[in-house]
Amino acid sequence: MKIALAQLNYHIGNFEYNTKKITDNILKAKAEGADLVVFAELAVCGYPPRDFLEFEEFIDLCEKSAQEIAVHCKGIACIIGLPVRNEVLAGKDLYNAAYFIEEGSVKSVVKKALLPTYDVFDEYRYFEPANQFKCITFMGRKIALTICEDLWNINNNPLYVSNPMDELIKQSPDIMINIAASPFSYCHDDERVIVLADNAKKYNLPLLYVNQVGAQTEIIFDGGSLAFDKYGNLLDEMAYFKEELKIYEIEGDTVIGYGNKSHQALPDIEQIYQALVLGIRDYFEKSGFKKAVLGLSGGIDSAVVCALACRALGPENVMAVLMPSKYSSDHSIKDALDLVESFGCKHEIIAIKEAADAFDSMMAPAFNGQPFNLTEENIQARCRGIVVMAMSNKFGYILLNTSNKSECAVGYGTLYGDMCGAIGVIGDVYKTQVYQLAHYINKDGIVIPENSIVKPPSAELRPGQKDSDSLPDYDTLDKILYQYIELKQSSSAIIAQGYDQALVRRIIKMVNTAEFKRYQTPPILRVSPKAFGMGRRMPIVGKYLS
Amino acid sequence: MKIALAQLNYHIGNFEYNTKKITDNILKAKAEGADLVVFAELAVCGYPPRDFLEFEEFIDLCEKSAQEIAVHCKGIACIIGLPVRNEVLAGKDLYNAAYFIEEGSVKSVVKKALLPTYDVFDEYRYFEPANQFKCITFMGRKIALTICEDLWNINNNPLYVSNPMDELIKQSPDIMINIAASPFSYCHDDERVIVLADNAKKYNLPLLYVNQVGAQTEIIFDGGSLAFDKYGNLLDEMAYFKEELKIYEIEGDTVIGYGNKSHQALPDIEQIYQALVLGIRDYFEKSGFKKAVLGLSGGIDSAVVCALACRALGPENVMAVLMPSKYSSDHSIKDALDLVESFGCKHEIIAIKEAADAFDSMMAPAFNGQPFNLTEENIQARCRGIVVMAMSNKFGYILLNTSNKSECAVGYGTLYGDMCGAIGVIGDVYKTQVYQLAHYINKDGIVIPENSIVKPPSAELRPGQKDSDSLPDYDTLDKILYQYIELKQSSSAIIAQGYDQALVRRIIKMVNTAEFKRYQTPPILRVSPKAFGMGRRMPIVGKYLS
Repeated sequence: MKIALAQLNYHIGNFEYNTKKITDNILKAKAEGADLVVFAELAVCGYPPRDFLEFEEFIDLCEKSAQEIAVHCKGIACIIGLPVRNEVLAGKDLYNAAYFIEEGSVKSVVKKALLPTYDVFDEYRYFEPANQFKCITFMGRKIALTICEDLWNINNNPLYVSNPMDELIKQSPDIMINIAASPFSYCHDDERVIVLADNAKKYNLPLLYVNQVGAQTEIIFDGGSLAFDKYGNLLDEMAYFKEELKIYEIEGDTVIGYGNKSHQALPDIEQIYQALVLGIRDYFEKSGFKKAVLGLSGGIDSAVVCALACRALGPENVMAVLMPSKYSSDHSIKDALDLVESFGCKHEIIAIKEAADAFDSMMAPAFNGQPFNLTEENIQARCRGIVVMAMSNKFGYILLNTSNKSECAVGYGTLYGDMCGAIGVIGDVYKTQVYQLAHYINKDGIVIPENSIVKPPSAELRPGQKDSDSLPDYDTLDKILYQYIELKQSSSAIIAQGYDQALVRRIIKMVNTAEFKRYQTPPILRVSPKAFGMGRRMPIVGKYLS
Repeated sequence: MKIALAQLNYHIGNFEYNTKKITDNILKAKAEGADLVVFAELAVCGYPPRDFLEFEEFIDLCEKSAQEIAVHCKGIACIIGLPVRNEVLAGKDLYNAAYFIEEGSVKSVVKKALLPTYDVFDEYRYFEPANQFKCITFMGRKIALTICEDLWNINNNPLYVSNPMDELIKQSPDIMINIAASPFSYCHDDERVIVLADNAKKYNLPLLYVNQVGAQTEIIFDGGSLAFDKYGNLLDEMAYFKEELKIYEIEGDTVIGYGNKSHQALPDIEQIYQALVLGIRDYFEKSGFKKAVLGLSGGIDSAVVCALACRALGPENVMAVLMPSKYSSDHSIKDALDLVESFGCKHEIIAIKEAADAFDSMMAPAFNGQPFNLTEENIQARCRGIVVMAMSNKFGYILLNTSNKSECAVGYGTLYGDMCGAIGVIGDVYKTQVYQLAHYINKDGIVIPENSIVKPPSAELRPGQKDSDSLPDYDTLDKILYQYIELKQSSSAIIAQGYDQALVRRIIKMVNTAEFKRYQTPPILRVSPKAFGMGRRMPIVGKYLS
């Protein structure tokens, strides 16, 4: 039996697009001799469809698409993920399900039992968990089909009390297939290989695993579909960060033609780089836009975002706007122009002094002689926001936000100023990782001029300003932030590791009091196990630790 | 047996504050002769604590508070809601639970079984559902204690497959108590009375119900705790939108001293008015701020928000900023000044022409002769945003957002301009309801000058601009929006009701393409069953209907 895995980039709710892509791949897999082609979890509508699932019409359109797809399943069978209605009048309205389609009609419906409801996942919001399990019979063989999380209750994962494979194994299946929508983070690929290998080994069955690829706003899927033998040995891994259709031939309980291999994990920074390029590209393609604008300061954050945007969209589609303030250093403009020249993107220089002065003059009667303070810094940052948004509105550029995770965390940024943008490119990348990204980008020859990398970070909104005036050095800051955000450690636990007590308390307080700002930031491309956005839901007026 | 219901306003994660309030009410209830005092769901930490629940230290602090509270339970017992750990290594880490405390120690732990995971609720994200049920024994009587949603599987509510009271009733309890955190919407009070009455009747037991009161950022609790006899007759309802401690005496299966009454629902608009005043007041009190700023245009939206703010915070704490553009009509300033005089709040007049002209001049080389369009309108709206944020930054005023639900829905507003603010006051109030609110505010004598109510809505960002240039009349718009947003009807279903096909499709497309804007709006005080924010989670790059 030849089984094709179709690792594709879907578009949420774009039924015409998804249906055509699925159909094309059915025909292609058939032409290449496959007996069965397998698509990912919720392939028909894309993942995560969120509250689209609450519209009856949306569910009807999923079913309609599946029927259109079924027409093409002649001489080849297919497995596709989609939401289906729960016909029993108890529990949630829907199941997260998959159709097994053979000879033009749906022969089996498989439902997901373990519904992730943590971090970015909200599956219990929509779906009823399955409690009946049945293998699919195809070409005289039994396939144990499960959906994503259903294989994650291995080794007594405390998250779940049941285990669908423990039921399916009783029916003596010949092979396991898992269809997934498993979002990327820089440490998730290793975990995935281990968990899936454990399944193959535990149930003594070969396992084929197909993931989605592509970005849906902030959530990025990295592909990397996998094949294992019945001993849990990894046999093959499909491409990361791109689409692929690949056929595996199964004889008995053996996947033919592959020897054991070990998982070749890319370095974290390379994964992050590829994820961000894909995240930018898909945001634009799926929104129907081509051109990006960003503010380019000459500093490292905007330099890295500009490099990523040029890679994702082509430098001809990137507009860098240089917006010196009256406090900008002489070398800032030069550094930014060097970047523009190096990248080959378009640029404008629009000084903000005239608008900043106008606000100073307009506000003078109300301010009544109050001294210069953060207010005037914020006015300048917001003038920059207006300039880049004006470029966006006039020419249809989409604004990229250049705030990094360290800044987002402590609220070192101006709401409606440098926090503007349609999508936050590096909002899940700590400042220390931004440096690593810059070095990675430069490793094949200088692209980001050295000056932008080595100079001390500054917003240049008052004379001689440096980030280090307000923040501890980024090495220390990022380590403390990681403990608090990713590892959810309390201040006392972090202090116990040897960090300065006053510093830890100050940083955690900054993180909590910045919650109101983060509520209004753009969606942030998620590359870590704990990003700001849907995966981290904190009260705003909550007092704890603030 | 005398049972006190303590309907209180908690503050999420403010353990010192909540513990003191709970303790004070224990002592007060004891002084008034109560045998038992009952506090709401998650009273110890406030509701909803969201991802605070993922911090081990937060759970420790809940337990520590409960132990402090227990010390005061001498000569009086109490029931308090709090999260407790799931000690079994399977399933979620926590239960949504309640302690029954008697003579200084915890005698029973009751756990919630039905976990709302829809709209603004995320309980499956944190909690394991209870599957064991045991009545509390106190003073020789058996109390069937349930937590909020546990009583909502009445009459075969399709949402849930189990029903905790069906288990508890087997133990022959004498009375039912339900502790809740039941968020306000203008139609929820009627539903609550019906559901709880059905429970009392079905189980043939008297029922005491205690709710929270107060706002936690966008979620507002309206109080209105209830007492029913065993026939399901309503005996008493406690205050709406304020704290109250009230004692009910139970003899046998009778609540003594009350006759039947019917639920006296306030008109929707009066409920919304009270909820918004409470929502503003609590946002400020719980964030530690006193003073508000808002842009006052002379139109009805900002007039209503200003009136609400003056009522919530006192007019001496409200700063109205008048920001005429060069296109503002002569009467706008006069209307706004009439409002200021009527309300007695502070004001500044800061014309935005100087800054808008500066941007026109700064952008001219890049714009290269492109004609005036929406870009220049947005620049002006954003200049207003900078002005009010500058007032906020310089003087510590908190900016109130004045966008209404109709505008938010169709994206008729400028991101980083009039969409700025810390809290959206009327973002869940349709424009047609804003008019009703204005009339309600004015019913005891003119407060909002008639001119602001009757003049055609306009942003005054180009000569002679009116909302009706871009939008259908608000009566029609709001009806279509209600069908789509609250009722989740498809375009074809709405068209089938007789609305113009092209109009319906255009409006729904506007709603969907504005998703990226709404992602970045401030939290919006929730007064309807379907508000923008946490309770409505739509994909941004999703294609469906856009």
